[in-house]
Amino acid sequence: VLGQTVDTNSAWIAQQLAAVGCEVIQHITVGDDQPSIERALRAAVAERCDVLIATGGLGPTEDDLTRHAVAAVCDVPLEMNQSWLNRIVEYFRQRNRPMLERNKIQAMLPKGATMLDNPHGTACGFHLPLREEMTAFYLPGVPKEMKPMFRDHVLPHVRQRSAGGVILQKTLHTFGLGESAVAEMLGEQMLRDRNPSVGTTVANNVVSLRVNAKFPSIEQAEGALTKTIADCYSKLGDLIFGEDDQTLAETAAASLAPSRFTVTTAESCTGGLLAKYLTDVSGSSAYFKQGFITYSNEAKQKRLGVSENLINVHGAVSEPVVIAMARNARRLADADFSLAISGVAGPTGGTPAKPVGTVCIALAHLARAESPGGKNDDREDEVNVIARTFNFAGDRESIRDRAAKMALTMLRFRLLGKPLPF
Amino acid sequence: VLGQTVDTNSAWIAQQLAAVGCEVIQHITVGDDQPSIERALRAAVAERCDVLIATGGLGPTEDDLTRHAVAAVCDVPLEMNQSWLNRIVEYFRQRNRPMLERNKIQAMLPKGATMLDNPHGTACGFHLPLREEMTAFYLPGVPKEMKPMFRDHVLPHVRQRSAGGVILQKTLHTFGLGESAVAEMLGEQMLRDRNPSVGTTVANNVVSLRVNAKFPSIEQAEGALTKTIADCYSKLGDLIFGEDDQTLAETAAASLAPSRFTVTTAESCTGGLLAKYLTDVSGSSAYFKQGFITYSNEAKQKRLGVSENLINVHGAVSEPVVIAMARNARRLADADFSLAISGVAGPTGGTPAKPVGTVCIALAHLARAESPGGKNDDREDEVNVIARTFNFAGDRESIRDRAAKMALTMLRFRLLGKPLPF
Repeated sequence: VLGQTVDTNSAWIAQQLAAVGCEVIQHITVGDDQPSIERALRAAVAERCDVLIATGGLGPTEDDLTRHAVAAVCDVPLEMNQSWLNRIVEYFRQRNRPMLERNKIQAMLPKGATMLDNPHGTACGFHLPLREEMTAFYLPGVPKEMKPMFRDHVLPHVRQRSAGGVILQKTLHTFGLGESAVAEMLGEQMLRDRNPSVGTTVANNVVSLRVNAKFPSIEQAEGALTKTIADCYSKLGDLIFGEDDQTLAETAAASLAPSRFTVTTAESCTGGLLAKYLTDVSGSSAYFKQGFITYSNEAKQKRLGVSENLINVHGAVSEPVVIAMARNARRLADADFSLAISGVAGPTGGTPAKPVGTVCIALAHLARAESPGGKNDDREDEVNVIARTFNFAGDRESIRDRAAKMALTMLRFRLLGKPLPF
Repeated sequence: VLGQTVDTNSAWIAQQLAAVGCEVIQHITVGDDQPSIERALRAAVAERCDVLIATGGLGPTEDDLTRHAVAAVCDVPLEMNQSWLNRIVEYFRQRNRPMLERNKIQAMLPKGATMLDNPHGTACGFHLPLREEMTAFYLPGVPKEMKPMFRDHVLPHVRQRSAGGVILQKTLHTFGLGESAVAEMLGEQMLRDRNPSVGTTVANNVVSLRVNAKFPSIEQAEGALTKTIADCYSKLGDLIFGEDDQTLAETAAASLAPSRFTVTTAESCTGGLLAKYLTDVSGSSAYFKQGFITYSNEAKQKRLGVSENLINVHGAVSEPVVIAMARNARRLADADFSLAISGVAGPTGGTPAKPVGTVCIALAHLARAESPGGKNDDREDEVNVIARTFNFAGDRESIRDRAAKMALTMLRFRLLGKPLPF
């Protein structure tokens, strides 16, 4: 309630519940004091709801008071759960860290509660009916711990209980065009009172379409969802790079895999972010072996053999320089593809000719099939290089992020054998 | 409540209110239906609060029902506000767009309400007491419209009403110890009923202390806050790396600046994340010139000259290998410091001896002062190298993040001239 954190748990939980046909009627946030938590629990009991889901307040510190509040509202004592205590002991033992006395409180549960396993932390959850016909789940607030516990323990219960209506959701992700341009391409699909509905959201420079289908039966919902998704694909085509949790890097990784292609990176303004994205994917060692971060002009010369003259004539942020970076990095790393980025991420360093947001990106590609000498053949005439100059909006973080994602997008379209659609 | 949007208004409003001494006791989110809105308003009336602030539901569509709910709860009719109707007409005229019949509803206010001007849209706000001693403000939900209206109309009222009370906040950040260990070190500071209060939160593996001081006057609040902050520093010392918006990389950058020290990176499992952090900081070209991403063993050999034998004997995730990576990267980049990371980020690749989460980090440092040859002198006996092996908890993303932040922390403590405190 102090506003020091933006709550993302509520939206995530509501989406999960909607997907199994469970409607959220209210969301309450209260402070870390026991009377406030108790009041919120009693208010929930008074509502006509079937399930209460509470997050947070299960840590080991003195402002973690959920378990005390639940015990008070249910009028039961707190009891030690020996099996979870053993787990906490083991958790600290494995990490060679001393278990503190205060961590013991995390094994204290209201009498009658069912413990819910937390594979990722020392705060177990629990499950305890609040009144007849109304159950309640208590989960830790840390999203990484809460989410798997929600999926394992809460969702199956809710799914079983909410027999009837079904809401199916799918999210499609695009990168490269703005939200209104994407909406324009979709046209009437964007009307919100249709079922399935299609809405756009933007997060981390990715414009996503959220499709929701609400129908009495799962067959109807699936049929309608499939049709609307197909409509979206027919309108946006390859602009859609992935669905649901899929990232741009995962899409690129999946496209590199069948031919065992490898990729290297030569980064200036993004300072390692592109390589970071490529290695976010587990198993990335199959396609990513090494990368170069050449932030200074001297590093571009010494590490990548970019000529000083080229930099002096065209500037470090120029297509000739990123082309040289991409060509040379590819050869040095002996990779099929290489991506090079040089730009003005700001907030300083912009000029009238190259304002903040100017980013040059090159993609070099050794055409193995056309090369009888195999992939180690480095004759330059068999290497295809394209370069593009972009003008990205936003602050330093956003410009760097757009640059790295645009490089991945250039790789993706090359692997599709198609030109960039923008 | 459907979870399709993450609510950022609540956190923003709470921060604004805290700054003028107004405490938020509860936050409620309900669906776009009139009975739910009415229930939430009646619940607020029953709370012991002085001000209600509601956002959203003031648009022209059929699911914008806040004005209807307020009229019902206050038992008054809706009336046309002619002055706002004129503004809406003018709004459309200026934009050469036809005014739709449905926009007229936006000029209908509950009888007795005071209209609040919206300079950025067609939804005016309004102000209407809900009961004696409790006023209520209704604002549009679009942040760009809500925020100026909040500042112009709500904040002056609340400031006057909270007669002098002030809440000052400060956040202190630590990295390296768990939340409960930090709480243990703080001891009685953590007691929540103290004023100023100190609470801990964890985000992106950084454990932060949030200190809130609530006093009648700003002088009292400042004095008490300063004293509590000093107490926290005396208990945690150098564990605290920064305050408020400061990041670990910014702290490291600030420590490198006075001596114009430079740093390079040699990354395996973090794949560029450490360099990304170092270059997040604007002006990072002063201390960061280049970095190496050597993900494969071959790259460690070819790019950094780590001997194949060393990797075969000790494994790529070993202190001898990161020491060689750090030594050689430093010399190649001609930097004062270098940081090298090699580890098992998972989810696969773990062994009983080196489970997922095992990360080796080395810090090499050319002791310039002791080197008469200056910083280009690369005699190995003048280079200090320390290496540490860590066992980080969490998933791939968390392990990579902790590894990069621990490397920055090792650099920070070296610049402080102190050993790592863990």
